Amino acid sequence: MSIGFTVTATDGAARAGVLRTAHGDVDTPVFMPVGTAGTVKAMTADSVRAAGARIVLGNTYHLMLRPGAERIARLGGLHRFMDWPGPILTDSGGFQVMSLSKLRKIDRDGVTFQSHIDGSSHRLTPARSIEIQHLLDSTITMALDECTPFPATPDQARESMALSMRWAALSKEAFVTRPGYGLFGIVQGGVYPDLRAESAAALGGIGFDGYAVGGLAVGEGQDMMFSVLDSTVPRLPTESPRYLMGVGTPDDLVGAVTRGIDMFDCVMPTRAGRTARAYTSRGVFNVRNARFADDGGPIDPDCACPACTRHSAAYLHHLFKAEEMLGPMLLTWHNVFYYQSLMAGLRVAIQAGRLGGHAAALRAGWMATGEDAG
Amino acid sequence: MSIGFTVTATDGAARAGVLRTAHGDVDTPVFMPVGTAGTVKAMTADSVRAAGARIVLGNTYHLMLRPGAERIARLGGLHRFMDWPGPILTDSGGFQVMSLSKLRKIDRDGVTFQSHIDGSSHRLTPARSIEIQHLLDSTITMALDECTPFPATPDQARESMALSMRWAALSKEAFVTRPGYGLFGIVQGGVYPDLRAESAAALGGIGFDGYAVGGLAVGEGQDMMFSVLDSTVPRLPTESPRYLMGVGTPDDLVGAVTRGIDMFDCVMPTRAGRTARAYTSRGVFNVRNARFADDGGPIDPDCACPACTRHSAAYLHHLFKAEEMLGPMLLTWHNVFYYQSLMAGLRVAIQAGRLGGHAAALRAGWMATGEDAG
Repeated sequence: MSIGFTVTATDGAARAGVLRTAHGDVDTPVFMPVGTAGTVKAMTADSVRAAGARIVLGNTYHLMLRPGAERIARLGGLHRFMDWPGPILTDSGGFQVMSLSKLRKIDRDGVTFQSHIDGSSHRLTPARSIEIQHLLDSTITMALDECTPFPATPDQARESMALSMRWAALSKEAFVTRPGYGLFGIVQGGVYPDLRAESAAALGGIGFDGYAVGGLAVGEGQDMMFSVLDSTVPRLPTESPRYLMGVGTPDDLVGAVTRGIDMFDCVMPTRAGRTARAYTSRGVFNVRNARFADDGGPIDPDCACPACTRHSAAYLHHLFKAEEMLGPMLLTWHNVFYYQSLMAGLRVAIQAGRLGGHAAALRAGWMATGEDAG
Repeated sequence: MSIGFTVTATDGAARAGVLRTAHGDVDTPVFMPVGTAGTVKAMTADSVRAAGARIVLGNTYHLMLRPGAERIARLGGLHRFMDWPGPILTDSGGFQVMSLSKLRKIDRDGVTFQSHIDGSSHRLTPARSIEIQHLLDSTITMALDECTPFPATPDQARESMALSMRWAALSKEAFVTRPGYGLFGIVQGGVYPDLRAESAAALGGIGFDGYAVGGLAVGEGQDMMFSVLDSTVPRLPTESPRYLMGVGTPDDLVGAVTRGIDMFDCVMPTRAGRTARAYTSRGVFNVRNARFADDGGPIDPDCACPACTRHSAAYLHHLFKAEEMLGPMLLTWHNVFYYQSLMAGLRVAIQAGRLGGHAAALRAGWMATGEDAG
């Protein structure tokens, strides 16, 4: 068999479960830190593990351009390259081709584009995307799709979704099945429930090891995102893991877990860590704020990460003011730790059948002192 | 008593010993990584410890300007601020006032300068430098001196040295003696043996817990530096630790240890780590070099640091090409680890009475494959 997934508890639509892979087990719901170019930015692999992460994401687009998929394969695969023996999920490259590359041209069979690094020309097809992810030795491979932009008319969204479904089938054909490795399909269809339903049905017909919801968190807003989940998630196979791509804030995660999502990835905690934004049990704030200059307490009194147990908010404030690399290093660690703790808390709450109360308590904490709801 | 120092073995002029301080013991000869602004750049305090360092240096000039000495005192001192419970040596601020600040004006009693950060005006006197270092809770305080520039005429060097000796006496007066804390004087005198001898005698007359040789590694070259050490070190008290400030390359360290120096600090390993330069048992090289792109082996096969035991040279090469923060993080760790291992090896060699052979073997290794002798 490919990867395994067992739901161990439910609470309303929310589920807790275990994902079983060739590179180890992962408790769900789970948040995957993003390791774009073979590194979770500003963290060693050890610190990513110590922060509680059990699966990380790699970006096919970045890695195919630099250092190159064939090179990583020669060097023993991405796990060895980045010293991450645990599971790795790789995206298909499609999203970043559209958002980062220059002079991209999409056609029925794939997309031709120029590298944002050196302008060199490349082509990504479903077969090549799957081959690259195989070369990387990705634990969970994503089908190549087109992330439908927002806003899109119903016709645009339908056409885009149809292309993604065609590519999903070609991705499935190209995927080499191995024990403990899996391939996920991606539901598209914009904000249109009928298109999402059609896409979910098409993917179910092809048959995947997991189902992602793509094309969200692209500007539609949280209400619309949750509305799409409300209509889409019930149409996904109950026995397979469900992955909401590129999401999101702590509040997004709680709302999506409540709606039955099992897996997440987002650059938010790592990117915020580099720009002095702290995600905490008391909300989101910027540690550059002058009110922290003499604050001898931790940035989050409820947090057990090294930044909080060993250092004052004043120290982190100083590091960012002095533009010391340790500022982003410590705050990224904190944010990743916070996200992992958040997910662990949600898992426990689901197991205990008290997700609603737990979510309400989390939201009350975020509103207490944070500068925004983040 | 203040700090203690015991010489446990000698090999020619070289000594191995133990420095006993309020914040723990330190085996000598020792290299102190530089933690300029309250952080050894690109490393957590844990990784500095794990790399083998037992004492670090802090910069009075940087810390007095940002976040401020009084603030650090209110927050519990520099040890607590940067999570470094071990010994900390702070410089006097004099060197950086002259090299970094704007519109500095030196007079008989001190120096007035403008901050390089915000242009604000400050004054540093021997008493204020000692007070700042007290506020920082520095384990080893350095007397305020003027680092004589190179080149300097004999008259210039004499005048500068005389000022430093005057300030040394004032520093001693201002220093508050506490058990396990110490004050070091700094020998000046440029490249002139008679001035160095006069300075050493003056400091010995005042009486310090340790004696530094300052004003070297400022452009005079290694041969001249060693020549100054040859004439100066024998004039320093045998029973006190000797500290060569701001030095240097691995080869500098071996040469100075051979000449009886016990303590060193330098930004070289940390600065090099941020610019892709690796110090290794095989010499110095830049990991950006294309020859590492497919190198699956470690950057130093003889090194036990995480960068070498867990990652390939190809991975480090990739991280620097991709401008990932983990590149400087891992390579700084490696370089600090290499410097600590180098010093540990010298200590063992001195204890075993085979420093000469050990030094020759080290130099042979550096010449083997490195791009330069570093």
